[in-house]
Amino acid sequence: MEITQICATEANLHLHKHVRFKGHVQTIRRMGNLVFLVLRDRTGTIQAVVDNQALVAQTDSLACECPVVLQGQLFPHPRGGAVELRAESIELLSLTTATLPVEVGKSSKVESLTLSAMLDYRPLTLRNPKVRSIFKVAAAICRAFREFLQSEGFTEIHSPKIVSTGTEGGAQLFGVEYFGKQAYLAQSPQFYKQMMVGVFERVFEIGPVYRAEEHDTTRHLNEYISMDFEMGFIESEQDIIAMQTRLLSHIFSFLNQFCSEELKLYGAAVPHFDSIPQIALSDARQLLKEKYAWKGVSTSQDLDPEGERLLCEHFAASANSDLVYVTRYPVSLRPFYAMPAPCGQLSASFDLLFRGLEVTTGGMRIHEPEKLVATMEKRGLDPSSFGDYLQCFQYGMPPHGGLAIGLERLTKQLLGLPNVKLASLFPRDRQRLTP
Amino acid sequence: MEITQICATEANLHLHKHVRFKGHVQTIRRMGNLVFLVLRDRTGTIQAVVDNQALVAQTDSLACECPVVLQGQLFPHPRGGAVELRAESIELLSLTTATLPVEVGKSSKVESLTLSAMLDYRPLTLRNPKVRSIFKVAAAICRAFREFLQSEGFTEIHSPKIVSTGTEGGAQLFGVEYFGKQAYLAQSPQFYKQMMVGVFERVFEIGPVYRAEEHDTTRHLNEYISMDFEMGFIESEQDIIAMQTRLLSHIFSFLNQFCSEELKLYGAAVPHFDSIPQIALSDARQLLKEKYAWKGVSTSQDLDPEGERLLCEHFAASANSDLVYVTRYPVSLRPFYAMPAPCGQLSASFDLLFRGLEVTTGGMRIHEPEKLVATMEKRGLDPSSFGDYLQCFQYGMPPHGGLAIGLERLTKQLLGLPNVKLASLFPRDRQRLTP
Repeated sequence: MEITQICATEANLHLHKHVRFKGHVQTIRRMGNLVFLVLRDRTGTIQAVVDNQALVAQTDSLACECPVVLQGQLFPHPRGGAVELRAESIELLSLTTATLPVEVGKSSKVESLTLSAMLDYRPLTLRNPKVRSIFKVAAAICRAFREFLQSEGFTEIHSPKIVSTGTEGGAQLFGVEYFGKQAYLAQSPQFYKQMMVGVFERVFEIGPVYRAEEHDTTRHLNEYISMDFEMGFIESEQDIIAMQTRLLSHIFSFLNQFCSEELKLYGAAVPHFDSIPQIALSDARQLLKEKYAWKGVSTSQDLDPEGERLLCEHFAASANSDLVYVTRYPVSLRPFYAMPAPCGQLSASFDLLFRGLEVTTGGMRIHEPEKLVATMEKRGLDPSSFGDYLQCFQYGMPPHGGLAIGLERLTKQLLGLPNVKLASLFPRDRQRLTP
Repeated sequence: MEITQICATEANLHLHKHVRFKGHVQTIRRMGNLVFLVLRDRTGTIQAVVDNQALVAQTDSLACECPVVLQGQLFPHPRGGAVELRAESIELLSLTTATLPVEVGKSSKVESLTLSAMLDYRPLTLRNPKVRSIFKVAAAICRAFREFLQSEGFTEIHSPKIVSTGTEGGAQLFGVEYFGKQAYLAQSPQFYKQMMVGVFERVFEIGPVYRAEEHDTTRHLNEYISMDFEMGFIESEQDIIAMQTRLLSHIFSFLNQFCSEELKLYGAAVPHFDSIPQIALSDARQLLKEKYAWKGVSTSQDLDPEGERLLCEHFAASANSDLVYVTRYPVSLRPFYAMPAPCGQLSASFDLLFRGLEVTTGGMRIHEPEKLVATMEKRGLDPSSFGDYLQCFQYGMPPHGGLAIGLERLTKQLLGLPNVKLASLFPRDRQRLTP
């Protein structure tokens, strides 16, 4: 007898066949002489029934999460819908040796854990189908990001994460002991992706970045995945905005096509748009003050989290848009390399807000070395400590710009998660270094 | 008049058309009243001729590496072959402000630089078409790696690089100051990818790893890109070997298809194979001793670099194979999590050698928690410091295994580069933290 090995999602293609299935036991339900199992593999779940009494006895040693190989025959489910696998043999591949701290097959139980328990038991809680679907979506975002940029002539790069100096002048860096020298973890691939514009014109990188911020909020991680691109021969930051608008459009339709089950688990829908509205920061501040009596006016020139939320509320209501670009940040709120806009004190830069949270920062960069040196000096930075960075500008650099999207933030906003830590497999925060 | 913007490689599709081209000036040659330019963009190079005397005068301010926008008409090249762009306008986007330390358009000049100069001037030397093609190949390897594994049901993960403990017990770790706690840079995503086998069954990751080794050799980097995969429900390490054999086959045909120009620059050919020969370590040692009077016998049980080179020489000659798996390493030469082979003191693990150099290490892992604890204790490791790792095994883990391929080593061997540092954009070694 020929035995086909199947995945959960292929089961309906093999009705009445004898098949082999490998996966974890997700739930066990005993009803009289019958045992019903839900089995989980990388693609999904399948129901199995054990009615052979020798096999039923064998299930006494089964516990939830045990990996098994189950052989049997596929039948239509007696109550319609999916198929059911009638067990003919069960091989137990290994035993669980601890009592599970949570019924991992039940999303309601897993979701009711405290954040701390959810993360302490991460190797287990990630097995929950709803929890793991977060990371299916994150993987799909990365894949769609790369596919789109590759089709636009971008080349993937890998820049070092151990660096000798900070991108933005030294604050919020984690120190590394590097053979007796002081080194740091990169806050961003900024300098390197700019250097690589001189080489490949268009580059992207998906990799970790580090911020030694003491914040413990629902929007901060100390280590996160930054999706960066940088491109040369642009006319203004609008070229970057246009590229990202098309990029996001591609990512969202990719998710619709390949992650519809995962989105459904979260009741999430992807935004649809042809273009994304833009508003200058000063206009946004004015609007928030007038429409919402926003209080964030005096503390900082940037929008605070409440301001970001309200601004998105406004654009959702007035323009039916989940996304809004905030543009024309004052130069003083941006790093030294931000290109000043033609009009003076403002920069050719932008943030992208998505359903109330900043997910992208980007803009045009200064490409002339004298101007870079001048802005460094104006900020009290020593140009001689940026010698390697300045090198590429002396060799001729085209006008260029780029952006960075926070993978975890984008995933969080898309699925409506309450905390960005839930969108990181093994998050790092001020208190947490494990698992 | 309609002006099409073109890339270098599209030029032959637009013969006699008026086009716009954006790129860097790679070389300038003046002949009487004519100026010949080679212009480079992300796709390749194109020749331009300036014969309009007003424009010729304008080229006085042009220097090699200046970014320009050139408009003109495309003609067949007077001496056949490629097309030539006859300039009608030249816009200089920015000036070079330093004398170039090397004629970057000439590969012979760039290749004759010392390694140190090659790396000191990295933002410039990477612009050389032959040098940059190394990283086109590296990007293509990553792309093909992901494409193949995605098609085999693997999910991409991102594991933390800031960790609380080493994978292999604490040696050769870079320390990180983490909010007053001692943390380290991850040597490998090993523990995390194993935990994720319980979640997704099949996972992969391409990301940086760190080794604080003091070696300064042609085969070591202190920060490199590790291409990892890990998969569950395997029978033995042969499942991992078989998966990698198909993976490499896919990568190599992808390179043949999409990087033929880059391979040609290095006179490189990809290996072709249906299967890859295997030899047990003890047999390899015996063979080397007998055939080559290999001296590496007494210093260590592993092969030394000379042994790896000779073994590959043997398999190239005897089996016409550029690749060979060395299998059955003694348990004592492998990390604690290596699965012992059925026969006892040997492990179900392997290395893959490629043209004289180890590029992959992999194997089956122990999946039963008691056995893991026992091997830890045998090696003097404290199981309580691996609590988070052990957690996933207590919840039921299938038999599993995986491997790690060094991206820079694979690229080096494929192109025949003399030093692995040349396959890293911005390499980190004992002395080098910049650029």
